[in-house]
Amino acid sequence: LPDQERKRQYVVNVLKEVFKSYGFEPLETPALEYEEVLAGKYGEEGNKLMYRFTDQGGRKVALRYDQTVPLARVVAQYPDLPKPFKRYQIQAVWRAENPQKGRFREFMQCDIDTVGSSSFLADAEIIACALEGIKKLGFKSTIMQINDRAIFEGVETKYLVALDKLPKLGEEKTIKELISQGVSKNDAKSFISKAKDKKPTENLAKIFSYLASVGFEEGKDFVFNPLIVRGLDYYTGAIFELFDFSASKKLSLGGGGRYDNLIEIFSGKQVPATGFGFGFDRIVEACNELGLFPADIDAATPKVLVTVFGPDFVEKSIKTADSLRKSGISTELYPDENTKIEKQLKYADKRKIPYAIMIGPQEIKQEKITLKNMQEKKQELVTFEQLISLVG
Amino acid sequence: LPDQERKRQYVVNVLKEVFKSYGFEPLETPALEYEEVLAGKYGEEGNKLMYRFTDQGGRKVALRYDQTVPLARVVAQYPDLPKPFKRYQIQAVWRAENPQKGRFREFMQCDIDTVGSSSFLADAEIIACALEGIKKLGFKSTIMQINDRAIFEGVETKYLVALDKLPKLGEEKTIKELISQGVSKNDAKSFISKAKDKKPTENLAKIFSYLASVGFEEGKDFVFNPLIVRGLDYYTGAIFELFDFSASKKLSLGGGGRYDNLIEIFSGKQVPATGFGFGFDRIVEACNELGLFPADIDAATPKVLVTVFGPDFVEKSIKTADSLRKSGISTELYPDENTKIEKQLKYADKRKIPYAIMIGPQEIKQEKITLKNMQEKKQELVTFEQLISLVG
Repeated sequence: LPDQERKRQYVVNVLKEVFKSYGFEPLETPALEYEEVLAGKYGEEGNKLMYRFTDQGGRKVALRYDQTVPLARVVAQYPDLPKPFKRYQIQAVWRAENPQKGRFREFMQCDIDTVGSSSFLADAEIIACALEGIKKLGFKSTIMQINDRAIFEGVETKYLVALDKLPKLGEEKTIKELISQGVSKNDAKSFISKAKDKKPTENLAKIFSYLASVGFEEGKDFVFNPLIVRGLDYYTGAIFELFDFSASKKLSLGGGGRYDNLIEIFSGKQVPATGFGFGFDRIVEACNELGLFPADIDAATPKVLVTVFGPDFVEKSIKTADSLRKSGISTELYPDENTKIEKQLKYADKRKIPYAIMIGPQEIKQEKITLKNMQEKKQELVTFEQLISLVG
Repeated sequence: LPDQERKRQYVVNVLKEVFKSYGFEPLETPALEYEEVLAGKYGEEGNKLMYRFTDQGGRKVALRYDQTVPLARVVAQYPDLPKPFKRYQIQAVWRAENPQKGRFREFMQCDIDTVGSSSFLADAEIIACALEGIKKLGFKSTIMQINDRAIFEGVETKYLVALDKLPKLGEEKTIKELISQGVSKNDAKSFISKAKDKKPTENLAKIFSYLASVGFEEGKDFVFNPLIVRGLDYYTGAIFELFDFSASKKLSLGGGGRYDNLIEIFSGKQVPATGFGFGFDRIVEACNELGLFPADIDAATPKVLVTVFGPDFVEKSIKTADSLRKSGISTELYPDENTKIEKQLKYADKRKIPYAIMIGPQEIKQEKITLKNMQEKKQELVTFEQLISLVG
C-alpha cells in the first residue's frame, strides 16, 4: 500500500510541477454536491452511475462524478474570481458501478482548465501543458489527436454516436449500425468517407501553429483526427484525446476540449472554458508497465534506519536519529528498544531502507557508529561526520 | 479560493516534509467505508454525526469520519504490512452536523500514526514529530500537554467525564456536576485535588527524557498535565494535546495518544498503535491570524505574465512564454490575443503576479522585451538573457 501511494504521489508531483510552470493554480471542491448540481450533466451513463442519496436531513446529495461540473458551479458561484481563471484539480470521483451489487469505484481525476477565454491560445496551452506533463513522466510514444466540434455542426446525433464507435467497431460494423438507425447504405458509406476527409478548421490551424512553435511535432506529438468525437456531452469547440502507443495496444491517457456553455447552466451568463483531464490510474499503471518510475521508487521514504541496541542504549540512538534529521536526512528510529538487532535489520531490508545504523557497547566505547549499506551488505565503523557525508 | 488553497497547500507541504524526515510514509484510504466498519467506534456523538446512507445496491455505507479507524481497518486487512508501520494521512472527513437541516461539514484531517510498537519510543517520536511540525510552521507558544490513561485505571466513567470538562467549567461547576451524578461533595473535592496531584508514570518519564534529549524543553515545549482526558474512546496509554497560547485565547491545535486495542476489533489480534492528529483547518486559520505565512503567499503561482499585444504578435509571446518555462520559471501566457494590454496588466495586478512582459511592435523592432515589475510599477527594455537573470 505505501508502495502504491509513493508511485501515485510521484505522478502527482511531476504533473503539479508542470501545471505550475504553465500558471495553473490548485483548487479543491467538496466531495458532496447537491444532486441538482450534477444531475443531467453526464448523459445517460452519468445518470446511472452517479453516486447519490438522501442525507440525514432529507436533502438530496451526490458524490463528485467529475471535476468539470463542480468547477463550473464554483465559477458561477464566485463571479468575482479574476478571469481568465486557470486551475488544476486532483481529487477523487465516485462511480456506482454495477449498482445491483452495490459496488462502488473511487478513483482520482487530474484536470487542468482555463475559464474565461474563448481564444485558441487557451486550448493550445491546455494541449501543450498536457503533452509536457506526459513527456515529463517519461512517455515517449504519446500523441494528442485533435478535432473540432465545429466540423460536426448540423450533423445528426445518430451519425455522431456511430462515429464515436468507429475506432472500436471498425467501418463495416459502423455502417451496419447506421443502417439499423434507418440510414441508407450509400448515405452511411458517404458519411464516413466524408468524415475521414474533413480538413482542420481555421481554429485548429492556429492551435497547430502554436504547438509547432513551442517545439511539438505534427504527426508525432499531435495530429488532426476528424473521427474524434469525445462523447456527446458539453463540448463545443476543439476536442482532443491523448493516446499512448508504447504498450501492446493503444491506450487513452486522457482527453478534453472546449465547453463554452456549461457554466451558463449555473450562472445564466456565458463563460467560455476549455480543459483536459488525465486518466490518472491508467497513467500510474502505464508508468509501472513501461518502467517509467525512478529506480528508487520502491525504497521507503527514510534513508536511514537507526536501530536500538537495547534499553540501555536508547539515548545514543535517539540523539543520532535527531542529528541526522537536523542534517536534513530523513531517518526512522526503530520504535522499540527490546527487539533483536537482526529483526530490526530485516525490517530495514523489507522496507528497502538504504542504510542502517547500529550503536551498541563496542561503538560507544570507540565513540563511533556502525553504518550498514543494506544493499551491498557491507558495514563499517564511522564517525558522525563521516556518517553524514556517506549518507547525506 | 485559490488564495485559500495556496495557504492550505503550504501547510500540507511543511508538515509533509517533517513527517518524511521522521520516516512516515503516505497512505490514502477510500472515502466510503462499510457502515459496520465505522459504527460504534466514535461514541454517541459519532453515531449521530457520521454521514451514512444506503447506496444504489442496497448496501449500507458511511463517509470517513476520522482517519484512525480506517487505518485500523487497513492494518487488519493487510497483515503482511511490514511493522512497525509509520504512516501519515491527509484527507477529508465528513460530519453530518445539524442533520435536521441537512447541513454537512467536510474538513481535512492530518494524522501521523505508528502501528506495531508498544514502546514509549513510538509515543515519544509521535510527540516530537508533531512539535517539530508545528514549530516549522512558525508557532512559538505551543505546548504539548501529556498525560497517561494508566493514572485513571479503575476510575469510574462519571469522574472522567467530569474531569474532561474541568478546563471549560472550572472547579466549582465540575464539583456540582459530580454531585448531580450522586457523588458526595467531599468525595468530589477530594477526587479533583487528588487528580491534580498525580505524578507522571514511569512510561511518561521515559517519554519526557526522550523529548529533553532531542532539545525540547519541559514546561515550555511539553508538560505533564494530569487533567488531560481526551474523551472516552479508544485511548489506552499516553495521551496528549497540543495547545497554542499565541492568540488571545488558548487554542487546541490537535491531539492524540496510544490506542492498543482498536485494531484488534477488526483483526482479532492485538496490534499496539499510537498517533497524533492535527486540527488542520484551525492551524491554517491560526497561521493566518498570527501572520505565519510567507510574505508572497498571496501572490499567484506564476512569476511572470506574458501579455499578448494583438493577433499579429502572438508568436513572439508564445515563444517567450515557452522559453521562460523551459528556464524553469513558472509563466502564464495571457490566453487571449484580442484583449487590451491595460486589461491584461490589471489582471496581473489582481492576481499579484510579480512581473509582466510586453512584446509589441517597438520591442520587436529593437529585438527586446519590456519587463514590468508590477509592484514597483517600473518597466524597462531588456534582452531575453537579462530577462532570465532579472526574473529567475
